[in-house]
Amino acid sequence: MLTTALVCVGLNGFSQQISAPSRYDILYNYGIIEAFIGGLYKGTLPIKDLKLKGDFGIGAPDMLDGELTMLDGKAYQTKATGETVVLDNDYKTAFSTVTFFKADTVFYVNNATEQQNLLEVIKDGLRNINAMYAIKITGDFGHVKTRAFPPVKAEPFPLLSTILDKQQFFDIQNTEGTLVGYHLPEYLNGIQISGFHLHFLSADTKQGGHVLDFNGHNLKVEIAELKSLELDIPTGHDFQNFKFKPKHSEALERVEQGK
Amino acid sequence: MLTTALVCVGLNGFSQQISAPSRYDILYNYGIIEAFIGGLYKGTLPIKDLKLKGDFGIGAPDMLDGELTMLDGKAYQTKATGETVVLDNDYKTAFSTVTFFKADTVFYVNNATEQQNLLEVIKDGLRNINAMYAIKITGDFGHVKTRAFPPVKAEPFPLLSTILDKQQFFDIQNTEGTLVGYHLPEYLNGIQISGFHLHFLSADTKQGGHVLDFNGHNLKVEIAELKSLELDIPTGHDFQNFKFKPKHSEALERVEQGK
Repeated sequence: MLTTALVCVGLNGFSQQISAPSRYDILYNYGIIEAFIGGLYKGTLPIKDLKLKGDFGIGAPDMLDGELTMLDGKAYQTKATGETVVLDNDYKTAFSTVTFFKADTVFYVNNATEQQNLLEVIKDGLRNINAMYAIKITGDFGHVKTRAFPPVKAEPFPLLSTILDKQQFFDIQNTEGTLVGYHLPEYLNGIQISGFHLHFLSADTKQGGHVLDFNGHNLKVEIAELKSLELDIPTGHDFQNFKFKPKHSEALERVEQGK
Repeated sequence: MLTTALVCVGLNGFSQQISAPSRYDILYNYGIIEAFIGGLYKGTLPIKDLKLKGDFGIGAPDMLDGELTMLDGKAYQTKATGETVVLDNDYKTAFSTVTFFKADTVFYVNNATEQQNLLEVIKDGLRNINAMYAIKITGDFGHVKTRAFPPVKAEPFPLLSTILDKQQFFDIQNTEGTLVGYHLPEYLNGIQISGFHLHFLSADTKQGGHVLDFNGHNLKVEIAELKSLELDIPTGHDFQNFKFKPKHSEALERVEQGK
């Protein structure tokens, strides 16, 4: 399967990078993932403000109520019930990542391919593993496995890693749709998630969620290298009082203190 | 000494926060400190471009040649020889952090105070330990201990923590001047340095460097809370090929993979 995909890429090739206006070069991130998975699920940024920063991206709806996917300027919520709805502009998010998406690299994979193989091909083709990339994959999906969390109810909210048994899983079959997401560098892990992170939205916008696995064919892969991170932090008391884990670095401390 | 400083702050008080235009709310960071201390000392951003992002800040001159301090829109280099000079606009930096500085909190410490006490007072007064702060301390300094690195020569460049014995130290006595720097949150450690990081520039702009210790009196402390981080990464091959340490987070991986 990997060979098939590679041959396919070889035939089509990666297109040349083209210069793009600067707003297409920015990864906008609201929130710090360490705080989010630590229980800061309450939304603090309205969707209308998020839309000022991008038309494409992924995030978390208010109170962990499902999964957020932004595509072509519309924000969608896939709930744990399986329902996918358009989010109001006044709805809030606790953590989101968006971009004004404009691909600088496009290639096609016509043969059937699975998640692991396709993501390996994409990763191998990235010009700079230490850069940030927005990734959009559109086409026919034989299968997409997604998940969505049900909303949290009462404070104090649990750590996200302790309520993985609350996730609802969806096996979406034979649908057109789009994978929306990012490949981010290692140095952003903790602020964001390093590596790939993809959400799905079906072409009829009725199905979606956080992607755990997929296979597809006739896929158009669009990649945008992002040159700058814009990071906004929540202003409320919950964020203010959150205890971040110390990221001890002996080398950094010695250099700072000169000894 | 701590008591003295606290009383002094108590008398003067922290002023009210005022709203500020947005360019004063941005911390601009060029580069990733983990890569810089890992040997990426070659400058890749011209000072003229850095000045578009701030008029106040700290950084590293090309080839680790001393310490960079920006104040009132001018960039200064304090060399390991002890000399401090104005940097040309075409000179390059490998790592720098700048801000358009406008204080939202101002207080005065008239009594003699030492670094540890004053920084404790400042830290205790920060509204939000998880926010980013630019800090400017102006006044009379009885003593400032600074350091500056000599330039590196041949590649491959050594890790910064392995050449701490090359630092030159300076004991600056009885001078007016300004401490320029930041207090940054824990979640930025690795991209930046968490906690305090200050450089010094004497009022006659002849002396400076990375601050290791100080005492002073008649100090004006100005603090600006920064709401947004703008992070630009170097575009060259050295950065592209740098191996960042994996920041393993089991919780993040489990959440991402849903298991």
